Amino acid sequence: MTMDQVKYLLDESDIPQAWYNIAADLPVPLPPPLHPGTQQPLGPADLAPLFPMSLIEQEVSTERYIEIPRPVRDVYRQWRVTPLYRARRLEQALGTPAKIYYKYEGVSPSGSHKPNTAVAQAFFNSEAGVRRISTETGAGQWGSSLAFAGALFGIEVKVFMVRVSFDQKPYRKALMQAYGAECIASPSELTEAGRAILAADPASPGSLGIAISEAVEVAAKNDDTKYALGSVLNHVLLHQTVIGLEALKQLERAGDYPDIVIGCAGGGSNLAGIAFPFLGEQLRGGKKVRVIACEPAACPSLTRGKYAYDFGDTAHLTPLVKMHTLGSTFMPPGFHAGGLRYHGMAPLVSHLKELGLIEARALQQRGCFEAALQFARAEGILPAPESSHAVKGAVDEALRCKEEGQARTILLNLSGHGHFDMGAYTDYLSGKLEDRDYDAPAVARALEQIPAVGG
Amino acid sequence: MTMDQVKYLLDESDIPQAWYNIAADLPVPLPPPLHPGTQQPLGPADLAPLFPMSLIEQEVSTERYIEIPRPVRDVYRQWRVTPLYRARRLEQALGTPAKIYYKYEGVSPSGSHKPNTAVAQAFFNSEAGVRRISTETGAGQWGSSLAFAGALFGIEVKVFMVRVSFDQKPYRKALMQAYGAECIASPSELTEAGRAILAADPASPGSLGIAISEAVEVAAKNDDTKYALGSVLNHVLLHQTVIGLEALKQLERAGDYPDIVIGCAGGGSNLAGIAFPFLGEQLRGGKKVRVIACEPAACPSLTRGKYAYDFGDTAHLTPLVKMHTLGSTFMPPGFHAGGLRYHGMAPLVSHLKELGLIEARALQQRGCFEAALQFARAEGILPAPESSHAVKGAVDEALRCKEEGQARTILLNLSGHGHFDMGAYTDYLSGKLEDRDYDAPAVARALEQIPAVGG
Repeated sequence: MTMDQVKYLLDESDIPQAWYNIAADLPVPLPPPLHPGTQQPLGPADLAPLFPMSLIEQEVSTERYIEIPRPVRDVYRQWRVTPLYRARRLEQALGTPAKIYYKYEGVSPSGSHKPNTAVAQAFFNSEAGVRRISTETGAGQWGSSLAFAGALFGIEVKVFMVRVSFDQKPYRKALMQAYGAECIASPSELTEAGRAILAADPASPGSLGIAISEAVEVAAKNDDTKYALGSVLNHVLLHQTVIGLEALKQLERAGDYPDIVIGCAGGGSNLAGIAFPFLGEQLRGGKKVRVIACEPAACPSLTRGKYAYDFGDTAHLTPLVKMHTLGSTFMPPGFHAGGLRYHGMAPLVSHLKELGLIEARALQQRGCFEAALQFARAEGILPAPESSHAVKGAVDEALRCKEEGQARTILLNLSGHGHFDMGAYTDYLSGKLEDRDYDAPAVARALEQIPAVGG
Repeated sequence: MTMDQVKYLLDESDIPQAWYNIAADLPVPLPPPLHPGTQQPLGPADLAPLFPMSLIEQEVSTERYIEIPRPVRDVYRQWRVTPLYRARRLEQALGTPAKIYYKYEGVSPSGSHKPNTAVAQAFFNSEAGVRRISTETGAGQWGSSLAFAGALFGIEVKVFMVRVSFDQKPYRKALMQAYGAECIASPSELTEAGRAILAADPASPGSLGIAISEAVEVAAKNDDTKYALGSVLNHVLLHQTVIGLEALKQLERAGDYPDIVIGCAGGGSNLAGIAFPFLGEQLRGGKKVRVIACEPAACPSLTRGKYAYDFGDTAHLTPLVKMHTLGSTFMPPGFHAGGLRYHGMAPLVSHLKELGLIEARALQQRGCFEAALQFARAEGILPAPESSHAVKGAVDEALRCKEEGQARTILLNLSGHGHFDMGAYTDYLSGKLEDRDYDAPAVARALEQIPAVGG
């Protein structure tokens, strides 16, 4: 027990007025998305069937700050500013000289960081008169968050949920339904993309790539329906920067600044959310930070993928974006951090990795669950399996500090709680959980199918 | 969407320095607990095998304020002050002139109000050198909270979990294990009390009364083990008053004061936590508030029970306390708000009901789930099934305000989130959930077995 400060709160008036757009500070511009047919850079009109124009403008903007509309801030106020904690009890348990801070996004109504963008996307869609949105979800954090946001803004939400998570996490499905959304296991019979996958493999566990295809197809074929994505795209990462902007202020209040910023990475949005504001400081001449993306060893796009133009989905309905990819046809195995089971990585995160501004690390799931339990017993909060990758990354760095006798300051994004993921913890506690390497031959086959672009 | 204030936070420095003890302000003293053998008032020594002396002193104290030790406040700081919300979106959905405020205790690490007393009990036990605690749990909110607190203070926790909840809520069990506690389905073969029940009914669904017997037996028979209870006792209700003390300050900040205070009631601690500080104001000459206890129709101790001396457990190992009781041998049916499945009611809550200071209302579960979904779709937070009883009570009062054209101020305690209870919501959403009246003949039989005390 310590009597020192452990929690750093801000006033509601400290909720950021604007999101931070790292495109304004990039030393090299982001390679543009390409039209899947012509392979020419996309224009705003190409995206209009899927997104309202306000979000398309954010997607391509190079303005440094983009104002958060008042109705979005009004909803943010319910759980933001989220707490920043000093993990003193974990530091003691590790015997490390490092200072570990964690930003806790699990206090949102759906228990993760996803409402930061779900609320924004639902607002901009409702402002554009949209009444229906289709989307995909992996672990269900995104789907339940968009369901929540849809309920607030009077938008019907249809969620294609990756089959393996649909079966592993029935409670996430129930949460979406409780918010009034429709939740469908993907691949489904409802779309051409789904039917094609099921024809080839009736027992397909699904993947985010497939679920994206289904949701995009529904939006493309229905004039009254738009599409929403929970990660990867620039505007999604933009909305998540409230996390890092708040953390910057909170650490200032604590009289501290991170040497290392850590997040888990599936599509890349929570990592971007915590890290981009700090990288922005650095790019504008401020202090250098090491940013570490922690990804699953079974789906290691940043550490084992190719940096290339590829499709965001399996059925090749999306634009081509330049990113680290394991190949859009790669089917990740069904490990427990379903939110990290994506073949690609956000173009902005990939670009920053190429520029040497982000490091990446692939982690096995058992080590992550072990770190998560150590965290829970010290700090009281049980991390989501996705977030446990960031916890493991932070524990490793803290132990390295101990070995090296260095008192570094570590900031980690605890993106969500694990209350919906107790089945995974039950498996881990009963010794049923196995580590899974990535399937190298399958990745090699998928990499071969990446389209040749430009030359 | 509204642009008005919806959330009332306080500084960490506003976490109460002391718990409020309503015993100091009672117009008529609480009838004392009696020894089960002699039927004479209990002395502190009688409770010493079960509790550390500091908690026994709190149990019988008539001091108005009891200081919260610094290490307890240091842990409270992690999630306290909890937010007080104005439910503006729910008010709009109901079209009511009433103002509805809710105090949200689901932001704690285990997702409910229970850590308020779990942390305090673990601290006082650890201060007394106790290394092991046994306890019972219904829905699992209490067990997981004590498991969390035990992990922080280095105490081994053994939890007897009511069989029907153990089966319905495996994720709660997993959470206890994640915190390092042992969780056993009750009735079990580990105790005489459990074996006796199983001999009579091998398929017994268990009850809180049985689980209490098992936990008390383990503590009574093992010198190195104490017992902890998650509700009912005076010191437990005392620890929960941080809820109402904070709400008082927060409403002052909002420039408001409640006409009606509402909580769900199983053992009575979360209702007491929110209501006692307001009743204290009233008893000391302040404004009158209506306090409404919302209990399940299937286990209606306050509305259908007898106010009499009875045992707190099924095997009659506990002292006799004067309370509203359905009879300690009554076995409530297995409805979904497992935390409310208790045959009795906190003596303090019962006493205040007899004094006309608390009203009670028995509610059917389907109406509660319906109100909970309406709440979730408006406010974003999905209530625990227990808390949904308070939500239903508040919705009913708000609709009455609409009928009567009265703009009353309603304060409700949202004691926990429903993220561990999605199985119940799934049943409700699929139409599988049925209302259950209390079993009148079974209650009549159990009431006959209440011991004759005093005359």
